[in-house]
Amino acid sequence: MTRTALFVLLLLIGNAIFAQKTLRTIHSPGKQTSVSVGLNKQGEIFYRIGYRNRPAMDWSRMGIVAKGYDFSTGFKLDGTSTLLHDETWKPVWGEVARIRDHYRELEYRLQNAAGNRMTIRFRVYNEGVGFRYEFPEQQGLNTLVVNDERTEFQMTGDHTAWWIPGDYGSNEHVYSTTKVSAIDCAHYERERNISTKNIVHAKNVQTPISMKMADGTHIALAEAALVDFGALHLEADPAKLKFKAFLIPSVDPGIKSKNSVPFHTPWRAVLLSPDAAGLLESKLILNLNEPCKIEDVSWIKPQKYVGVWWEMHVGLASWDYEGTQNAAFNTGARHGANTENVRRYLDFAAKYGFDGVLVEGWNVGWKNWYGQWSDEVFDFTKPYPDYDVEALSQYAREKGVRIIMHHETSSAVPSYERQMDAAYAYMNKYGMNAVKTGYVGKIIPRGELHDGQWMANHYLRVAERTAKNRIMVNMHESVRPSGLHRTWPNWLACEAARGQEFNAWSPGNPPEHECILPFTRILGGPMDYTPGIFETRMSTYDPKKKEVVHTTVAKQLALYVTLYSPLQMAADLPENYEKRLDVFQFIRDVPVDWDDTRVLHAAIGDHITTARRQKGTDNWFVGSITDENPREVTVALDFLKPGKTYEATLYADGEGAHWETNPYPVAISKRSVRRGDVLNIKLAAGGGCAVSLIDSRRP
Amino acid sequence: MTRTALFVLLLLIGNAIFAQKTLRTIHSPGKQTSVSVGLNKQGEIFYRIGYRNRPAMDWSRMGIVAKGYDFSTGFKLDGTSTLLHDETWKPVWGEVARIRDHYRELEYRLQNAAGNRMTIRFRVYNEGVGFRYEFPEQQGLNTLVVNDERTEFQMTGDHTAWWIPGDYGSNEHVYSTTKVSAIDCAHYERERNISTKNIVHAKNVQTPISMKMADGTHIALAEAALVDFGALHLEADPAKLKFKAFLIPSVDPGIKSKNSVPFHTPWRAVLLSPDAAGLLESKLILNLNEPCKIEDVSWIKPQKYVGVWWEMHVGLASWDYEGTQNAAFNTGARHGANTENVRRYLDFAAKYGFDGVLVEGWNVGWKNWYGQWSDEVFDFTKPYPDYDVEALSQYAREKGVRIIMHHETSSAVPSYERQMDAAYAYMNKYGMNAVKTGYVGKIIPRGELHDGQWMANHYLRVAERTAKNRIMVNMHESVRPSGLHRTWPNWLACEAARGQEFNAWSPGNPPEHECILPFTRILGGPMDYTPGIFETRMSTYDPKKKEVVHTTVAKQLALYVTLYSPLQMAADLPENYEKRLDVFQFIRDVPVDWDDTRVLHAAIGDHITTARRQKGTDNWFVGSITDENPREVTVALDFLKPGKTYEATLYADGEGAHWETNPYPVAISKRSVRRGDVLNIKLAAGGGCAVSLIDSRRP
Repeated sequence: MTRTALFVLLLLIGNAIFAQKTLRTIHSPGKQTSVSVGLNKQGEIFYRIGYRNRPAMDWSRMGIVAKGYDFSTGFKLDGTSTLLHDETWKPVWGEVARIRDHYRELEYRLQNAAGNRMTIRFRVYNEGVGFRYEFPEQQGLNTLVVNDERTEFQMTGDHTAWWIPGDYGSNEHVYSTTKVSAIDCAHYERERNISTKNIVHAKNVQTPISMKMADGTHIALAEAALVDFGALHLEADPAKLKFKAFLIPSVDPGIKSKNSVPFHTPWRAVLLSPDAAGLLESKLILNLNEPCKIEDVSWIKPQKYVGVWWEMHVGLASWDYEGTQNAAFNTGARHGANTENVRRYLDFAAKYGFDGVLVEGWNVGWKNWYGQWSDEVFDFTKPYPDYDVEALSQYAREKGVRIIMHHETSSAVPSYERQMDAAYAYMNKYGMNAVKTGYVGKIIPRGELHDGQWMANHYLRVAERTAKNRIMVNMHESVRPSGLHRTWPNWLACEAARGQEFNAWSPGNPPEHECILPFTRILGGPMDYTPGIFETRMSTYDPKKKEVVHTTVAKQLALYVTLYSPLQMAADLPENYEKRLDVFQFIRDVPVDWDDTRVLHAAIGDHITTARRQKGTDNWFVGSITDENPREVTVALDFLKPGKTYEATLYADGEGAHWETNPYPVAISKRSVRRGDVLNIKLAAGGGCAVSLIDSRRP
Repeated sequence: MTRTALFVLLLLIGNAIFAQKTLRTIHSPGKQTSVSVGLNKQGEIFYRIGYRNRPAMDWSRMGIVAKGYDFSTGFKLDGTSTLLHDETWKPVWGEVARIRDHYRELEYRLQNAAGNRMTIRFRVYNEGVGFRYEFPEQQGLNTLVVNDERTEFQMTGDHTAWWIPGDYGSNEHVYSTTKVSAIDCAHYERERNISTKNIVHAKNVQTPISMKMADGTHIALAEAALVDFGALHLEADPAKLKFKAFLIPSVDPGIKSKNSVPFHTPWRAVLLSPDAAGLLESKLILNLNEPCKIEDVSWIKPQKYVGVWWEMHVGLASWDYEGTQNAAFNTGARHGANTENVRRYLDFAAKYGFDGVLVEGWNVGWKNWYGQWSDEVFDFTKPYPDYDVEALSQYAREKGVRIIMHHETSSAVPSYERQMDAAYAYMNKYGMNAVKTGYVGKIIPRGELHDGQWMANHYLRVAERTAKNRIMVNMHESVRPSGLHRTWPNWLACEAARGQEFNAWSPGNPPEHECILPFTRILGGPMDYTPGIFETRMSTYDPKKKEVVHTTVAKQLALYVTLYSPLQMAADLPENYEKRLDVFQFIRDVPVDWDDTRVLHAAIGDHITTARRQKGTDNWFVGSITDENPREVTVALDFLKPGKTYEATLYADGEGAHWETNPYPVAISKRSVRRGDVLNIKLAAGGGCAVSLIDSRRP
């Protein structure tokens, strides 16, 4: 029996368990994807998803359990509506210039015996499905107290999954690759470098999670538009090959969220693609988010930056004035955010064309902050005595560079919220229009969690409040994004995953790490990964150190293309760049905003090759990266504009390059190319290649 | 053996247990009060207090237990210093024009074997003692995590005490009068009208607590300058006639407070007086607070106000626009804060000389607020559609009256904090310079408590932030004051006790209630009790209602003098005042700021007679109140200025007056009086008398 025939058979069997009158099936505009939904005799809700005439998810339960209201059973169908939507919109910045939002929608209206009403809204795209629960205004139900979400995702086989544990306090884990049947977080207990690690359930994983089916079809489970709700984790049932929604809890025992009715949950998103590359090109999560809410977006600028940051991670400088606080735990290092040093970075940024200079450790509070869980730590308008904010702002203005503000909150969130207005006014006063926020440590309000409803709302408040002040924001240690940068495009990026910094002071990020991030964390939105480390060996700074960056230098360049973000740091020290200006040239050239993107090859955890066209030009940039295995990649330049000649500059792994034994060699070569030409690229173990393809006739 | 002889003997016995070299005794400037402090062999700290040659408190332990540091034992004396301080200062407003701060101070410096240092600072006044714990900067101790305070107060006998339970969530209880040996909060479990009631320890009582000794000496235990610490409750040991400090906890299990070192605790205050009246005249708590931190205080004005408030308590109006929320739980009442109604109050205020009109229920959020414990309820810059803030501000300006802002937070404190700047800017925009804040419900951050460190800091932040915006503040459901209005005189008043409102919808406040408040709650600072109810029977509004105000109308007048506050409401409805303009005249006349105050007679829980001289004039006002017992009071007018003639207007209980059976009669009489004359006043059961004494030759 073919899989298609099996699907049709299953469809018939499945349908039999539902009252025919409650069953509805809708298809995506191109018929690739279908969703069926129906009620069983107990009035419980089930749905399933088909993709390209095969089952993509089998019958799975739905529903919400609230205090005093069980919205998962006892329902009758109250009516349905469908509509077809087709619209093309332009993101303020992004991987492509235009995005088509094309779906068929089903509104599935339910009512129980007590008259309580809930609607499930499905949007069916050619590349997947979104659905959410909606609670219309109704008598007596003013506040919905959510105890549990019953949504299930029944896999159709024992897929290969790429996942991190459903940690309550961190998303900075190394990814695991296992069968769904083998999901188990036990070994994460050995992770020693995440101070807020809080793994409560051994079978819970975070979304987005991506999986590959036996037939090569890829499926990712994610959420979109996380607003006023706890983040979506998934409780795996390895025996049944099933996931169940698990909402990050609040401090209230048993309560996942409280919501004023009318209310709707965030979207649950199922991304589908015949191959891995398709997942990276999907715009489903962005499409499920609301349009931009900022009227004048002229001040929002994708950008590259450098900053007083890596020197604290490698132990050359300290965050605090007193010289006691850095990631190398050595004392007596100089205070990094001193006027002279920042002036040096401003000079460097101006000379090499960077937009901004991040300055961490500029404000009082750093001496006694880490792990204290104190209510009031940082003052966001009070610089250290050796940081002349007035003079530096003036100097930055003269140089045409922006100082990027840093607000480490130490997770004392109410303290930050009550200072927000003053802090943003201070930034405006000194001409700073971008801020990096940080949430290191356990959350205050105590008992709330980084990814719970309280904090999800906080991050959104910061996005809104910064927008109101014409400030761009980059959040670290926040919840992972869910496409809200469509609505708030001043929210340029988040960290919200294991970033480069782990390479400086931990066992680091395995070579496959950057080949997994785009299929998981980055599906939701841009990441401030901070690529560009040229001096990959920490022994350079301290002979006792064994930590290394787990890539070649060429791969560090390629990351600027493969890890999409409108905000990219050149994270290494200025002196390291000035030693290798030829290699550094790629970082100077690579843009951060694009009109088009093509994922040329991809296999999750193995390799990615991506080509992107620079915004407003015909220039293309290609990044190709591999995991711990060397690899040969063929790049057919079919995307170049016909008739044009391009100057291609390749930054490839040099002879003998290897992430561990020989990370430094970069072979730079130039050639003229045209559409249809082919580049044959050799990637070293843990290596990569970056290519700039510059339109030769550009003005 | 006389008590004096006994004291000397006890002194000798007591001293024997201490190494003589650690024992220090200092006396107040007038020798009335003495404090001895010393270490026993284990290096534990003990103190005791003498008053007028008798023991006022016997040897009692001291110390702080912190995480990793036991600052209560193992100490050696590291040195002592003493100083004599004598200064007279002028409060911005108050009961008297000048306050003498006259004490002898002892700095008692301790160090343990590990080198950790703590200083205890004693200030010994003729009217009592203050002491606090200080933690100077020291190696390794950056954050002090306080688990317990060991301070004890060993009573010298089974005194009569006036107390309320050490409730974690409310201070709105009826007072109990018992012997110390009989303290037990069990019966408070029957209290049904305090939604946040949270009595965890049956033997805990709140400070300030006042006691009367067998010989008539009065002692009160209180605190001063509650900054960055949990409020001081007392754990009674009825068998040993002892109290031990009990700090309101934080949400962290076992943690009472976290403090950055250097740090000092609030002052612990022991007030002493030969009689009850002396307690009311004590300025010890104010003196222990820091001087005013506001440079320009010209905008701070004591004031009388009316407001859209009592009509919600009696059920004539609702807080919410939808007409569902009022204290009578009736629906369909009109929205009180509508433009027309507020205009009526503004007219009334202007006509009768009030400074302000409080408007509650003006902003969106009231429909679904009560008991929801929701993170985000009220918007402090968004009026209901029927409240024309623009027009009313303009109208108020024309009338020379200020609208008083209302910020009910529903205890969603982070929500309030993040809106503070915008909310105060909104007030400034509309010419409002005073705000009443409210903290109804359980606190967010969840698990924090109304009187814990987190909230203590919040109230102070509000005082500071309002001051910065030239705004006066009146806090309801806050922690009870501890004299911080000396430092932040824009913090005019708090409720923080059982106010008049309980008479509208609960069994109410027994007639003795107002005869206890000044000896307990009000020792720390002014209370917004909201006197002035003329229509004392709730059956007027709804025949089914049985609630009554537990005073006569004449007593309502007298409260304006006996309950000191720079902020006094005339709480009843305008129409009730206009029915009795002759009685209302006293409320119009009575000032809210004073140059001098004399407590003429007082017995805790029984009666109070107070005379006060109006600021900047020779006019005096007398208030006399009694509990449930009728009483005759003689007021010798010895305080009047010699040679002057005064027009005395007496507002006495009328014939047959009785709080319960006949509350309304007020006998108004006028006569000419001079210094040395005597007024013989009859107080009805639950009655009172108010007298204005107007300098006949005033311009």
